[in-house]
Amino acid sequence: MMKLKRQNVRTLSLIVCTFTYLLVGAAIFDALESENEVKRRDHLLSEENMLRSRYNITDEDFNFLRRNVERTVSYYAGIQWKFSGAFYFALTVVTAIGYGHSTPQTTGGKIFCMFYALAGIPLCLVMFQSVGERLNIFITYALKQIRKCFKLHNQEVSETHVILVTTQLSSLVLSMGALMFSYYEGWRYLESFYYCFITLTTIGFGDYVALQKGEALQQDVKYVIFSIVFILFGLTVISAEMNLLVLRFLTMNTEDERRDELEAA
Amino acid sequence: MMKLKRQNVRTLSLIVCTFTYLLVGAAIFDALESENEVKRRDHLLSEENMLRSRYNITDEDFNFLRRNVERTVSYYAGIQWKFSGAFYFALTVVTAIGYGHSTPQTTGGKIFCMFYALAGIPLCLVMFQSVGERLNIFITYALKQIRKCFKLHNQEVSETHVILVTTQLSSLVLSMGALMFSYYEGWRYLESFYYCFITLTTIGFGDYVALQKGEALQQDVKYVIFSIVFILFGLTVISAEMNLLVLRFLTMNTEDERRDELEAA
Ligand SMILES: [K+]
Ligand SMILES: [K+]
Repeated sequence: MMKLKRQNVRTLSLIVCTFTYLLVGAAIFDALESENEVKRRDHLLSEENMLRSRYNITDEDFNFLRRNVERTVSYYAGIQWKFSGAFYFALTVVTAIGYGHSTPQTTGGKIFCMFYALAGIPLCLVMFQSVGERLNIFITYALKQIRKCFKLHNQEVSETHVILVTTQLSSLVLSMGALMFSYYEGWRYLESFYYCFITLTTIGFGDYVALQKGEALQQDVKYVIFSIVFILFGLTVISAEMNLLVLRFLTMNTEDERRDELEAA
Repeated sequence: MMKLKRQNVRTLSLIVCTFTYLLVGAAIFDALESENEVKRRDHLLSEENMLRSRYNITDEDFNFLRRNVERTVSYYAGIQWKFSGAFYFALTVVTAIGYGHSTPQTTGGKIFCMFYALAGIPLCLVMFQSVGERLNIFITYALKQIRKCFKLHNQEVSETHVILVTTQLSSLVLSMGALMFSYYEGWRYLESFYYCFITLTTIGFGDYVALQKGEALQQDVKYVIFSIVFILFGLTVISAEMNLLVLRFLTMNTEDERRDELEAA
């Protein structure tokens, strides 16, 4: 049991890699952002002081005002919990994107949200992997047909071909999505691309969130549908890629373990 | 190709399930939160009006102040990008938690963040699955030893036993974590539990974020280490559970496809 099996070596290497990756990442983020943070903070605080002294706001009132503004952000962005907004929220829960642009405020809402995520996230994960795998099968089939059309001698479609197509497809989804969101939200293209990327990796910072302007959630049906379809289709394409690139690594240890057992028997 | 294979039926059922789940969820969230939203908004806006009229703040200045407050939130929570803060941020990127308590503000930071997530999320996913699988093997081994100790006749340890233990373990991590964070952050126990749950499901709304009070990120080394270990250990336990409960469903279509091919050959 205690001798270093391949599975243990692999796990240890992965832990070392991840920690190194985190330390290097932290150093780079520190280098990129720290200086700007201090400058930006000083600038914002001097703006704050200017306004406070112009109106002579007391400390107590200003703290009260700050808390008030922090809490009204989502309300200034429009009604969040009428059906379409609640649907958008539910989608960010089950996909684990979790922008946090609006979060349950009632105790009942918080408790329901936990139960909802508990069943919803696994369901959603299995659904996306299932559809992604179907998409891969469809791409394989389509590539074969194309090769037949062009009467190519070698009609075999390798996994590498399918990976190339899904990679192309996800780049296309990202860049087209970025174009559309930049049009609808008035973001610069890079910001919009960053929003799409952070959404489809399910990080979902919430620094940029679609449908949070001009009551879009309640008024602009076309844009609501586009945003939801973007998330659903985008995650399908990413899942198709993960199905080919990552899934085999997730089961590696388990498969090695099974082989060891068979060999031992 | 077009006849309804088992894989297609499964995928279709999953799509129908997910959409139903989203619609039902949206309806419940609407019912739970909509009324409170209107009340809370009216209350906050009347507070805002009271303060504005007390100081007679112009529309232009108030909008300026609002934008200023929104941007200073993370700075009031302490220095975010010095090494320990940058490490905490990097961890929320590679785990895809993405609280968004602090996000890259420079163009360089945003671009690096995307590349960082691109490699980091798969690495982290594979690492957690690998460690989670090792944890399951260890639990199986420990259960066997316990049965030996008690000289039980049947020394077989089934998967169900291991699932029960990891479920117990994850409940323990959640409830102990909730206790600690409620102590450190002064949250009510339910809020603290909600924070732990939303973190370990990697939703990461960011409505509650640890280490955002009293310069904790830079000053309270013990608490920083506890928070990071909580995320790492918590996600390992969840991964161990996912390894047993969900992973097999992710590969179901692919395995059926392989079987079909073998049968066809
Ligand atoms: K997330
Ligand atoms: K998030």
